[in-house]
Amino acid sequence: MAVAGVGETVRLRLDVAYDGTDFSGWASQPGRRTVQDTLEAALATILRLRETRLTVAGRTDAGVHARGQVCHADVSSTGLDVLGGTEQLAHRLARMLPDDVRVRRVAAAPDGFDARFAAIWRRYAYRVCDDSAGADPLQRRVVLGWRHRLDADAMNAAAVELLGERDFAAFCKQREGATTIRTLREVRWTRDGDLLTARVVADAFCHHMVRSVVGCLLAVGEGRQQVEWPRAVLDGGVRDPRVVVAPPRGLTLEEVGYPPAEQLAARAAAARAVRTPP
Amino acid sequence: MAVAGVGETVRLRLDVAYDGTDFSGWASQPGRRTVQDTLEAALATILRLRETRLTVAGRTDAGVHARGQVCHADVSSTGLDVLGGTEQLAHRLARMLPDDVRVRRVAAAPDGFDARFAAIWRRYAYRVCDDSAGADPLQRRVVLGWRHRLDADAMNAAAVELLGERDFAAFCKQREGATTIRTLREVRWTRDGDLLTARVVADAFCHHMVRSVVGCLLAVGEGRQQVEWPRAVLDGGVRDPRVVVAPPRGLTLEEVGYPPAEQLAARAAAARAVRTPP
Repeated sequence: MAVAGVGETVRLRLDVAYDGTDFSGWASQPGRRTVQDTLEAALATILRLRETRLTVAGRTDAGVHARGQVCHADVSSTGLDVLGGTEQLAHRLARMLPDDVRVRRVAAAPDGFDARFAAIWRRYAYRVCDDSAGADPLQRRVVLGWRHRLDADAMNAAAVELLGERDFAAFCKQREGATTIRTLREVRWTRDGDLLTARVVADAFCHHMVRSVVGCLLAVGEGRQQVEWPRAVLDGGVRDPRVVVAPPRGLTLEEVGYPPAEQLAARAAAARAVRTPP
Repeated sequence: MAVAGVGETVRLRLDVAYDGTDFSGWASQPGRRTVQDTLEAALATILRLRETRLTVAGRTDAGVHARGQVCHADVSSTGLDVLGGTEQLAHRLARMLPDDVRVRRVAAAPDGFDARFAAIWRRYAYRVCDDSAGADPLQRRVVLGWRHRLDADAMNAAAVELLGERDFAAFCKQREGATTIRTLREVRWTRDGDLLTARVVADAFCHHMVRSVVGCLLAVGEGRQQVEWPRAVLDGGVRDPRVVVAPPRGLTLEEVGYPPAEQLAARAAAARAVRTPP
């Protein structure tokens, strides 16, 4: 196998969608089927590289889905030219990847772009069906079935108390030296028949944060907890054993937002300084 | 296991949804996993019967899905009373069935109801994604990926020529003695981004009819055949080897229509006379 020579690199932005059901999450793990490993292997094969490293906007857990995941890779511009450019790369990826992961778009990234640190917001959806007959079988891979009727108004009233810039330590798996301060912009449930969807937007999320928040709200929605309870958990500042992390099945990373091109580099530098352990 | 005594029977209407991917179709087959066998076994267990026979509105093929399938079963009213009525039956079914099939509703059927013969129309949807990157992984079980861009206007122009009461022998797997005359009411493609959906409505469908019609239209949509071709195939009156039956993955039985209660019995008698081989 030929290996591209040392030379100029080009940063590629990849927009990715996947059904997380049969993946052990995004992040590479030895001996497990992960989205990162699957994509990196396909890219390396197509671009004839020993390896390709991807940096991702949202490291989703096992079983979590994505419709609007974003990642980047730095690849040899010579290798890309030999292949025939990004359009040809997209075409080859479509043929090579298994059908539970798709690269929806490949493009040269603008200067200063960093899939992780340049992102200014992430939007997730959490979907629950509270029909007592169970979730629609045609949607069951992305919708959680819930046995009890849920009160969307109560969940929204509880959610509003969590918004703003706060320390979400109570809802997160802690990582040594990393901050758990995030700005939660929106948590809003809407009902369409038996299907409830939470739209959850923040600048970034700590590990387990969306699913912990959703777990709290579901307890309120079915009446096991008072509307005031999620805020009390947040204010407690430590992980509360009564908070059940909602199952991954219902969670989908829908979209990642980036600033205009001229602000990308400054944003990436600022986020890196705040969120990287010293 | 107790067996319900001989006595009055009650006809139940069951509204059913399933993901057909892992079923060998609706109809019972020895040694295969079918929707009918799965439902009949669950009903028999819950109602403590040796067996329960289901009659269905649309016998879907292997891999075909349903959101609005309808079937009926005649069960002992004593057995149902002992269980606690239809609500309790629905509850037990929800707990017992695998998550790729759901009974959305169970109710005592009105007099004269017959899931198959009283139906006055069936509505199917066929879904295709013509994004060159492939179908959305989160929808891939119910959406066919298509490599070539499809022209919805051309498909609609071709489809309109197939509407009305006609002999659909050219599009059907023949069954000895059974008529292939059907009334095709609507075939209409709509596009939403890269997702094309055909809405297909007829009084009833012969075997392979929807997928053969869709296969013809896809050939027109990608420009391999002229707009006039599907009508020419229909007029030919015999199966045409150029017609490719579209894959089951994209097909979903969405809804079955019945007349008002007072017309049920008359409709069932009329349909039975026309569609049953002598």
